[in-house]
Amino acid sequence: MSSGPPERDRRLPSGEARPTYTLDRLLDVAVRVFTERGYDGTSVQHLSHASGLSKSSIYHHIEGKEQLLRLGLERALEPLMASTTEPESTTGPAIDRLTHLVRRNVAILAERLPYVTLLLDVHGNTETERWALDQRRAYDKIVAAVVAEAIDEGSVRSDVDARTTARLVFGMINSAREWYHPERSVKPDQLADQICSLVLEGIRVH
Amino acid sequence: MSSGPPERDRRLPSGEARPTYTLDRLLDVAVRVFTERGYDGTSVQHLSHASGLSKSSIYHHIEGKEQLLRLGLERALEPLMASTTEPESTTGPAIDRLTHLVRRNVAILAERLPYVTLLLDVHGNTETERWALDQRRAYDKIVAAVVAEAIDEGSVRSDVDARTTARLVFGMINSAREWYHPERSVKPDQLADQICSLVLEGIRVH
Repeated sequence: MSSGPPERDRRLPSGEARPTYTLDRLLDVAVRVFTERGYDGTSVQHLSHASGLSKSSIYHHIEGKEQLLRLGLERALEPLMASTTEPESTTGPAIDRLTHLVRRNVAILAERLPYVTLLLDVHGNTETERWALDQRRAYDKIVAAVVAEAIDEGSVRSDVDARTTARLVFGMINSAREWYHPERSVKPDQLADQICSLVLEGIRVH
Repeated sequence: MSSGPPERDRRLPSGEARPTYTLDRLLDVAVRVFTERGYDGTSVQHLSHASGLSKSSIYHHIEGKEQLLRLGLERALEPLMASTTEPESTTGPAIDRLTHLVRRNVAILAERLPYVTLLLDVHGNTETERWALDQRRAYDKIVAAVVAEAIDEGSVRSDVDARTTARLVFGMINSAREWYHPERSVKPDQLADQICSLVLEGIRVH
């Protein structure tokens, strides 16, 4: 694996830093290719082909493909983790905090679909993937704790354990990545309403 | 791609057909490796390494890796499609038929976890994968039609469209593949009870 070109190559002949839109575009392409081929099955050659950038041009921007994986995963994980420390997630009745976490999770999935898809496909073969799995586990733990509090406060049913309920609820949300298209389907807010309502009240007419 | 060895090689020196347990074992290994590495990223060499069978021995049993993919996918798709024609899925109130389909889907997932996991990871790059996707679409269509009937009969809420409800409900079920272990968790029947109940009644205490 190349350690990348010397620093001067990361600048334009004028001495300015190369514009970051190339990195953004490269990242978007890489996230798509990782999802299509799997991270292990993607080489820098594949990224070069898909982006139209030469391999040496790619190495002007990044040290290797794992850096692109990290950047892509951060775009999903940062807002997810941030959502757990928002006031609506940390104060008030547990059922309201849970509802907020569900709504935020749907919104993040809708707004950052390719990055969340990448995150949900992570296996754990590299250091970066294991870091992402650790973050996901931390998120799941926070959510399960809120479900447990909601059970304790009597607002969520107690016949299914907190961890299973959390897994099933967020499993339902995450499954939307397979069919949701923000431009073709309902708006993210409406999807969040629908999922929240189905999760809380069920599908049966009462 | 080899077209396989001559027919006589598929028999033991005694003239008997080779025992099928080797094919069963090879299939189990292949399904695991396909899921770990992705189907595209798996070569017959990988299968040879993982199974301890030589490549030529593998070709005694199958024509190529796509045949193993087909056999693996059939183990998930056959019971799923069969569940849609059972009397409980075709007669009676739509809400009861839907409940039966949900319960059967959970049971099949629990009993055939590696095969259902393989099915849910299918992308559609080969003829076999496209066949599997067609089957999944046919299944989804049947399920969505039952949800639509349940909405018409007034037993399932009408504020979310039938297709979205069907996708979210079966998305929740399928997400269990990521954490469910029949030997470590609740029994398949209990999981089916929990999911059915959460789906129908929601998680909130009424």
